[in-house]
Amino acid sequence: MSMPPAQPSLRWEGDAIVALDQRALPLDRRMLRLATVDDVIDAIATLAVRGAPAIGLAGAMGVALSAFEHCRPGTAGTCAEAVHLDAQRLIAARPTAVNLAWAVRRALERVPEGADAVLRETTAMLQEDITTNRTMVGHAVDTVLAHTPDRPLRVLTHCNTGRLATAAVGTALGTIVALAAAGRIAEVLVGETRPLLQGARLTTWELAEAGVAHRLCVDSAPAAAMSRGLVDCVLVGADRITANGDVANKIGTYSLAVAAAHHRIPFIVVAPESSWDRSLADGSSILIEERDDDEVTGFGPVKSAPPGTRTYNPAFDVTPAQLITAIVSEHGAHRPER
Amino acid sequence: MSMPPAQPSLRWEGDAIVALDQRALPLDRRMLRLATVDDVIDAIATLAVRGAPAIGLAGAMGVALSAFEHCRPGTAGTCAEAVHLDAQRLIAARPTAVNLAWAVRRALERVPEGADAVLRETTAMLQEDITTNRTMVGHAVDTVLAHTPDRPLRVLTHCNTGRLATAAVGTALGTIVALAAAGRIAEVLVGETRPLLQGARLTTWELAEAGVAHRLCVDSAPAAAMSRGLVDCVLVGADRITANGDVANKIGTYSLAVAAAHHRIPFIVVAPESSWDRSLADGSSILIEERDDDEVTGFGPVKSAPPGTRTYNPAFDVTPAQLITAIVSEHGAHRPER
Repeated sequence: MSMPPAQPSLRWEGDAIVALDQRALPLDRRMLRLATVDDVIDAIATLAVRGAPAIGLAGAMGVALSAFEHCRPGTAGTCAEAVHLDAQRLIAARPTAVNLAWAVRRALERVPEGADAVLRETTAMLQEDITTNRTMVGHAVDTVLAHTPDRPLRVLTHCNTGRLATAAVGTALGTIVALAAAGRIAEVLVGETRPLLQGARLTTWELAEAGVAHRLCVDSAPAAAMSRGLVDCVLVGADRITANGDVANKIGTYSLAVAAAHHRIPFIVVAPESSWDRSLADGSSILIEERDDDEVTGFGPVKSAPPGTRTYNPAFDVTPAQLITAIVSEHGAHRPER
Repeated sequence: MSMPPAQPSLRWEGDAIVALDQRALPLDRRMLRLATVDDVIDAIATLAVRGAPAIGLAGAMGVALSAFEHCRPGTAGTCAEAVHLDAQRLIAARPTAVNLAWAVRRALERVPEGADAVLRETTAMLQEDITTNRTMVGHAVDTVLAHTPDRPLRVLTHCNTGRLATAAVGTALGTIVALAAAGRIAEVLVGETRPLLQGARLTTWELAEAGVAHRLCVDSAPAAAMSRGLVDCVLVGADRITANGDVANKIGTYSLAVAAAHHRIPFIVVAPESSWDRSLADGSSILIEERDDDEVTGFGPVKSAPPGTRTYNPAFDVTPAQLITAIVSEHGAHRPER
């Protein structure tokens, strides 16, 4: 069941990407070999590779795969066009998280220098990610401690924002693990995160691995937990942050923010600078991905609803800046104006 | 997949209770024969029979089973004591819904007259339930229309409060079906109601049977739906209502009430007079049933969390009166003081 902490969920090996298949966790641990752009797109679209920072890195490596395929000596004319087309398809694999588009575009800039230069850029991005992550978590720990009582904390999180979602320790979950290492966590309440259960499958696994006390709950329980005094602080990640500080994140985040505001509980977003999209004034213009009915009408092979049941299945929602206590990146804490 | 509307989910047949096994729906339709008090307790505890009004009726019929077993000619001395002990066990099968205790105590009053008198009382209760239900739904339809815009409505409901949960058309869901029959429903949004998925399994099934347009969503999506203007009104049932109008209901109800208040959307509770418990001043003294970890760590037979994961699994939560627009019973609409 356990995974050696040193093993990253995503890496380049030989001439392909090797990624942990997050659809199969926690019961099955299998690695995927992604050798083509189509493999990468499929892995991102089906959430085998997931988490805004991780899909950014996978997208950049996908550009490298495309460059190795199309940019051989003497193909300068057709190479750039072919790689750009692949890049557009990679970006479209999941529309809401901005990190994917950001990372793909950054990798694209190296295409004129050749495929090896693109690959070197992804390695640099991975190293930067690790440094950025460490700095961001330091700021986030300070921010949490500044907004909470001076005792071991009960914190609530949603979805998975740990090392499975990133190239390093993670955003919100990285912060929680760092708080625990400092002896400041009494218990983590983990929302299971329907429909794909990233909280139940992945976050509980990472917390068990890190030895942090936690309990899993259904996604409708956190408001009740708050009313009973079981939550000191809510910590979540972000898929896209607009200029005014509105945050798109996993469906259910907004519901938690409304409940936290009602109970005057700090609601803190932890996400790297690459999650900001200042080209959008506010959250109303964020494209929200709607996914298939069968994610909601069952889980895996188990069907829970009658055949033919239609669903409302947005993968993300938008939390307005006014409900957010602080947004923390590697540059420190930003407090949206209220 | 369809079930004839005339078929009740619970009835007395010969010398036993015959009940539709709600754990198996919607994929399998099987009837249970409950011939002993232990059978009834097991059916209630495992949610084979569920819904506050329905478990009340099952509990009363359980008293009849006990009376038939213990109260034969010449057993007057031991009969009353034995049946009272069984009644206490029946009441303890699920602690939160008050209808169970109310119905069991009402059946108990007939024990001195013999087992047949207890059985006749349960038949009378069932008939009253049908009349009560019809009157309540009429009041609830009027209440919804008084609080919503004059156009076909988008309503949100949670859990199952239809004919599977009652002996008649249902409380909140009965109201929705009546509104639809009057041409006043554009769409029903159904929360799946983790962990046991009564919304996904039962409410969608009843709405499909009644031909009412509906979509299923995960329990964390309603707040986002509200923010996008997809909800005109929230309708839920109740398991216990205290003197001040606080409402215990399925876990997740409180979260919906907080979100509805934030969006100024009417939040209406539909429940019979027998759901009121005026012996409790407010919701803080309601006993909230906490259920097993395995309800949350899996999805039906599929395990979703690592082995040994602990959970926070309250079956109910308490919505304070201030967040409720109206509580409707067979006596009309009660508007909690704010």
